[in-house]
Amino acid sequence: MAKVKKAPRPKAQTPKGFRDYFGTEVTERAHMLKTIAEVYHQYGFDALESSAVETVEALGKFLPDVDRPNEGVFAWQDEDDAWMALRYDLTAPLARVYAQYRNDLPLPYRRYAMGPVWRNEKPGPGRYRQFYQCDADTVGAANVAADAEICAMLSDTLERVGIPRGDYVVRVNNRKVLNGVLEAMGVTDEAQAADVLRTIDKFDKVGEAGVRELLGKGRLDASGAYIDGVGLSEDQAEPVIAFLTSKDADVAKTFANLRDAIGSSAIGAEGVAELEKIGNLLAAQNYGSDRIEIDPSVVRGLGYYTGPVFEAELTFEILDEKGRKRQFGSVSGGGRYDDLVKRFTGQAVPATGVSIGVDRLLAALREKGRIGGKVTGPVVVTVMDKDRMADYQSMVAELRNAGIRAEVYLGNPKNFGNQLKYADKRQSPVAVIEGGDEHANGVVQIKDLILGAQIAENATLEEWKERPSQYEVPRGELVAKVREILDLHA
Amino acid sequence: MAKVKKAPRPKAQTPKGFRDYFGTEVTERAHMLKTIAEVYHQYGFDALESSAVETVEALGKFLPDVDRPNEGVFAWQDEDDAWMALRYDLTAPLARVYAQYRNDLPLPYRRYAMGPVWRNEKPGPGRYRQFYQCDADTVGAANVAADAEICAMLSDTLERVGIPRGDYVVRVNNRKVLNGVLEAMGVTDEAQAADVLRTIDKFDKVGEAGVRELLGKGRLDASGAYIDGVGLSEDQAEPVIAFLTSKDADVAKTFANLRDAIGSSAIGAEGVAELEKIGNLLAAQNYGSDRIEIDPSVVRGLGYYTGPVFEAELTFEILDEKGRKRQFGSVSGGGRYDDLVKRFTGQAVPATGVSIGVDRLLAALREKGRIGGKVTGPVVVTVMDKDRMADYQSMVAELRNAGIRAEVYLGNPKNFGNQLKYADKRQSPVAVIEGGDEHANGVVQIKDLILGAQIAENATLEEWKERPSQYEVPRGELVAKVREILDLHA
Repeated sequence: MAKVKKAPRPKAQTPKGFRDYFGTEVTERAHMLKTIAEVYHQYGFDALESSAVETVEALGKFLPDVDRPNEGVFAWQDEDDAWMALRYDLTAPLARVYAQYRNDLPLPYRRYAMGPVWRNEKPGPGRYRQFYQCDADTVGAANVAADAEICAMLSDTLERVGIPRGDYVVRVNNRKVLNGVLEAMGVTDEAQAADVLRTIDKFDKVGEAGVRELLGKGRLDASGAYIDGVGLSEDQAEPVIAFLTSKDADVAKTFANLRDAIGSSAIGAEGVAELEKIGNLLAAQNYGSDRIEIDPSVVRGLGYYTGPVFEAELTFEILDEKGRKRQFGSVSGGGRYDDLVKRFTGQAVPATGVSIGVDRLLAALREKGRIGGKVTGPVVVTVMDKDRMADYQSMVAELRNAGIRAEVYLGNPKNFGNQLKYADKRQSPVAVIEGGDEHANGVVQIKDLILGAQIAENATLEEWKERPSQYEVPRGELVAKVREILDLHA
Repeated sequence: MAKVKKAPRPKAQTPKGFRDYFGTEVTERAHMLKTIAEVYHQYGFDALESSAVETVEALGKFLPDVDRPNEGVFAWQDEDDAWMALRYDLTAPLARVYAQYRNDLPLPYRRYAMGPVWRNEKPGPGRYRQFYQCDADTVGAANVAADAEICAMLSDTLERVGIPRGDYVVRVNNRKVLNGVLEAMGVTDEAQAADVLRTIDKFDKVGEAGVRELLGKGRLDASGAYIDGVGLSEDQAEPVIAFLTSKDADVAKTFANLRDAIGSSAIGAEGVAELEKIGNLLAAQNYGSDRIEIDPSVVRGLGYYTGPVFEAELTFEILDEKGRKRQFGSVSGGGRYDDLVKRFTGQAVPATGVSIGVDRLLAALREKGRIGGKVTGPVVVTVMDKDRMADYQSMVAELRNAGIRAEVYLGNPKNFGNQLKYADKRQSPVAVIEGGDEHANGVVQIKDLILGAQIAENATLEEWKERPSQYEVPRGELVAKVREILDLHA
């Protein structure tokens, strides 16, 4: 008889580009989301949770990477052959929700949303296909006071989650100013306009001279590769340079420079006026340039922005994977997008909003040692006599009722060493031991595992004798003694 | 020239079987998840968040509906043609995670997880394709003390989220007892065994006589349709009946009845012994039958359970969509599944856990009026003079700094009535008004919208005159007066 071939075992593997989060990675994120939600709520925004799945039709072609429209989502066909996809951000679903419920929602509609989004993109180091966003948007407010408010809220939020003033800056620009500059340059071709925007985005990296080269014939980059230029004449490139170098310590001077750069462009003038208004509103509330500043080099990749754009950058340096110092960079971005709802309804609805990359923000706080310090496992009640499990479970019940995190060891109790190894792996502060003798004498042994570890590491034999880390107490004093030890290490 | 045909507008619609959650629906769920996580954490469980996406290979064929294996997931192929799918529960990902990281994880591994899961099933009323689960599992604990602990934790959790004792019961059974009964009956055919289990599951509905009919030739149901029977002889059916009627107010009598029902089956005897042990452990901690009870009619659909099974049922009645009274039913279930990890590693790993259907639990609490009462919108500062937006934003900044939820009206301010309608729609407690006169006089008008609504509804003209709902106060007393009104309605 032929041997029946067994199916191979499935691989236990996270899918490529995805990851699992354990313990404090999960709880620290939950805590941050809660803190951000509190700020958003305080500002008058209401919660919305749309489904993770949308019709591809509703998501549209707005994936926030201009170079690859209509790609980058995880999509499938449902039983009626309709295409469905996982949301790639929280803004496209908001546009759908607002269009769908617009007759019932208040106007303006101010909502916040938080949750994972999915991108079908090539994964890389620190770059996953599922990550959290945390957005707030005001739909139906044409006034740039809405944009100013979002910038202020972004600043407040960053400070609330633990980024001190000075370690971040919210930078504000306006797409209309950029469009005005393009108009002043005589650039009308869309592809060429996109090339110019991409070049502006490189200003931080290549500086004024580099931008000049890239706008003209091209440039040899550091690696020796030749980067083709946009092909503008030097005269034509002048407004871009004027624009990029417009930022001045005196904000009034910045605006004067911007007005020079846009020449006679009407759209450009509108953009500068809006920026000035945002600047004045923020100044009136004392948001100075130590928190929020006008910065003409902010572009933001998204094709759909139509007015003010902003991003929050962390200004401190970290070491990258190769040990080189670099700026941490952007953790949040947003802006005004007046056309997203129009796709559904035909009516333009002004909207503005911000998205915080929560995972990057958490990484920054961990990098700076501001979270992720102390991990505390449960008090572990060990099992010396497996027939007295009910007694051990009563002990943990007492501890829990006193608000102390606790558990009975539920593995195979035969090897006592394994129980202490388990407590060690769980980073337990205390182990409780009650064998037959203790039970007969009405006492329990309580082991201070934190002190025990310190002694094991540092102490001399003399010190070790003087500082016992294990105590015998009457059974009735179990909770009090455990509490005492926990308070000692708090 | 031919007219260019415009692409039709996308439909603004939630995909079929999905829904959006607004405002308090979101925050009440977040609050419940937080509360449940606190109980789980207190019991020593650590957080785990696996990705929403798994390989189909890793998910396997364990979808918790025995009738439809290998169906019911949302799946697609990635760029390497590998099949990926959205998780349909939180247990399958746990098995994958445990198998993948088993060398680094503590043993036992106690984890909790919460988040949405997705089912590609026919949607129905109250039945969605995305819903939240909230699980806790102990992997690597063979002792049924682990199961007893989970039952106790489930009871604690339900009370902590607001289901009072008496309004729920956790019912416990053991698959091994069921298998013992099948053995005593001489049922060895798997399909027939499944038919018997399904019949047992109907005991609550059709009673003893109904089960007798369904185990034998069949039965005419209330609608007049004939339901085919399993085709057992009366003698063969006897152990099932003995089993189903074994529950007694005296738990010792229940166990004696169960031992009769399983006859000489060894696996059955093991099951009864395990149930007794669980019963004793829970009794030692004073979890009486008002909270947790042994109930032989609990089956649980999942094919993968191998030992103790449990479910939490809410015992109060609600009105269904047709206005008929019915029991609210199950909000949580779980049990022991010793074979899930084996799929990956070849080694059996004992595991037990529970899953709470958070959305059903929220529905129950809303039904009983225990959540969802009071909604409070933000204080709305109206815009009387759009050129003084900075002043209005300063007012909301003051209010927020005092911990009061507040916002400036950001819609078109031209029609003042729209601003008050907006405040009404947001369920705002207070509106602030500062026109030119007020500004000149250094005062603001503060409107108590809650009192205003009460007066509008009930008061006579006399009362209306005596109880003003609008106050003029000096600008400097804005925060104090708003606070006073909020406290009045707290």
